[in-house]
Amino acid sequence: MSTVSAYAASDKTGHLTKTTIERREPGPHDVAIDIKFVGICHSDIHTVKAEWGTPNYPLVPGHEIAGVVTAVGAEVSKHKVGDHVGVGCMVNSCGHCSSCTAGLEQYCKNGATFTYNATDKDGTITQGGYSQAVVVDENFVVQIPDSLPLDKAAPLLCAGITLFSPLRHWQAGADTRLAIIGLGGLGHMGVKLGAAMGADVTVLSQSLKKMEDGLRLGAKHYYATADRDTFKKLRSSFDLILNTVSANLNLGAYLNLLDVDGTLVELGIPEHPMEVPAFPLALARRSLSGSNIGGIAETQEMLNFCAEHDVTPEIEVIAADYVNEAYERVLASDVRYRFVIDTSTI
Amino acid sequence: MSTVSAYAASDKTGHLTKTTIERREPGPHDVAIDIKFVGICHSDIHTVKAEWGTPNYPLVPGHEIAGVVTAVGAEVSKHKVGDHVGVGCMVNSCGHCSSCTAGLEQYCKNGATFTYNATDKDGTITQGGYSQAVVVDENFVVQIPDSLPLDKAAPLLCAGITLFSPLRHWQAGADTRLAIIGLGGLGHMGVKLGAAMGADVTVLSQSLKKMEDGLRLGAKHYYATADRDTFKKLRSSFDLILNTVSANLNLGAYLNLLDVDGTLVELGIPEHPMEVPAFPLALARRSLSGSNIGGIAETQEMLNFCAEHDVTPEIEVIAADYVNEAYERVLASDVRYRFVIDTSTI
Repeated sequence: MSTVSAYAASDKTGHLTKTTIERREPGPHDVAIDIKFVGICHSDIHTVKAEWGTPNYPLVPGHEIAGVVTAVGAEVSKHKVGDHVGVGCMVNSCGHCSSCTAGLEQYCKNGATFTYNATDKDGTITQGGYSQAVVVDENFVVQIPDSLPLDKAAPLLCAGITLFSPLRHWQAGADTRLAIIGLGGLGHMGVKLGAAMGADVTVLSQSLKKMEDGLRLGAKHYYATADRDTFKKLRSSFDLILNTVSANLNLGAYLNLLDVDGTLVELGIPEHPMEVPAFPLALARRSLSGSNIGGIAETQEMLNFCAEHDVTPEIEVIAADYVNEAYERVLASDVRYRFVIDTSTI
Repeated sequence: MSTVSAYAASDKTGHLTKTTIERREPGPHDVAIDIKFVGICHSDIHTVKAEWGTPNYPLVPGHEIAGVVTAVGAEVSKHKVGDHVGVGCMVNSCGHCSSCTAGLEQYCKNGATFTYNATDKDGTITQGGYSQAVVVDENFVVQIPDSLPLDKAAPLLCAGITLFSPLRHWQAGADTRLAIIGLGGLGHMGVKLGAAMGADVTVLSQSLKKMEDGLRLGAKHYYATADRDTFKKLRSSFDLILNTVSANLNLGAYLNLLDVDGTLVELGIPEHPMEVPAFPLALARRSLSGSNIGGIAETQEMLNFCAEHDVTPEIEVIAADYVNEAYERVLASDVRYRFVIDTSTI
């Protein structure tokens, strides 16, 4: 066991304070990682504030982890000391169900082990990346290509794969008319990744405030959803819509923006059930779908894709003692577009 | 113009009375049809009772039409006098939009012309098949194979194609774990068609009352949804679920019955928006989709498939003056499984 510094929440105020946690000694299949940077994801905030159920306190959030390997177990073959590596939302899964064997560990039938607030194989509660180090099974560690700086790589481990996976699954490419709802941490990755795949990208944002950014990041079109004409003008004009907004929207209006056989994918999970009228689905064979992060092999493919196409998030690097203020700014949508904690300051 | 007997509703009570309507002289591309049988679809009842908006009264419903050709226009090449033919939910579409050119006339961008309560090309309001004769553009008339009796063929034109099209689109076959929600007019066709395609068919019905029927029609499994254990037992066990129930269900519970990448297709359109929780979609990349009848070529394919596989609906043939009582019985789910009006009694 080793003791490392971390930032943890102790109750549902979600306020984070500095503390220490224990990390296990690396087992034969484990990789020990010196965490360099960790991204702040909206899920971290939902979880520590008990908005998705009461978590196990004290809880260290963080599942956008980028660092350097400091030790490996005797059986480890995929990583070596000094490698730049990443850990995302999962640190384990059953490995033998139909999802795991298909490379869809995120949909493990026996429940993937999430990076924080989950029960690990040894019975302990997992603690996330707002800390100086972590020990993870080698199969849940991915290689970060050298051309990607670690601070910018961190948000790819959740925000990046969350957008990359549905873009691949629903086959976004040169013929795809793609809309991204919301230009935040997730949405701005959707714009960049979609554009890199060759799609014709439209941003649907509440206002035109971030329009200049959106076009610079790769969108060809930008519309304000507060303007009701947007919904008339864009009717039946998209093949794929990725919704990154977790507030409940008027989904019927957005579904009508899909062409025949189009799909709207929910990525920002709203707290309350969505109200979905049946006619917009039936009258053009449209689909409302969900997607959750991506598999491990697909996460590696995403990192390689980002290195090859020079796709990285827009980030604001902060010191750890700024994290509570950063949370407030995330909730106020006042970040362009992802906070990343420099963990040397923890 | 010719005057023919028909049954029409005059107000939103939906009560049908005998009347006469005018049919146009066949134009060069038209087919005149002596209607022999017409099925009673739940949509007829929704429409005449103004549950989907106030229709144009007086209104003759009926879009499951089977009959014999009595005359054809000079340019007609697809049908000839004496042919057994059918007409379903559409009698026209624009013919040039991306949907029409793809054989998806039901999703015509300019709005397909429905068989009743729609504005026809000549500005008149279309009147349906609860009548002795109808005149329809040849492209919206399909051939009924000789081996299908006309009374049993009638319901295939709506109930049949409504199930056949999604089964084909979502590729139901020998590997498909298929569930049908509701064993009514639509549902019983889903069981028969799904079984004929080789799928492993499960019926999900409120109770086990119709279990014997369901198994006889081709289902391998039958569960009562009033039993909460059903939802535990069947979790993640279907690839495709077709929902034929138009009442609002607890969709989250049904979505959880889908395996990873499974799809639940809404066929019975509920009046109120559906409440859809996001987690069941996200946690297994499930989809909620809609589908509406099928294209004309696909309708012909369905009739040929039914002839080849000896798939026909279970029907109760009635005289026209029983129609109002039949409506009451449809609303009480007291029909096994489709009423068909013998139009010689109109």
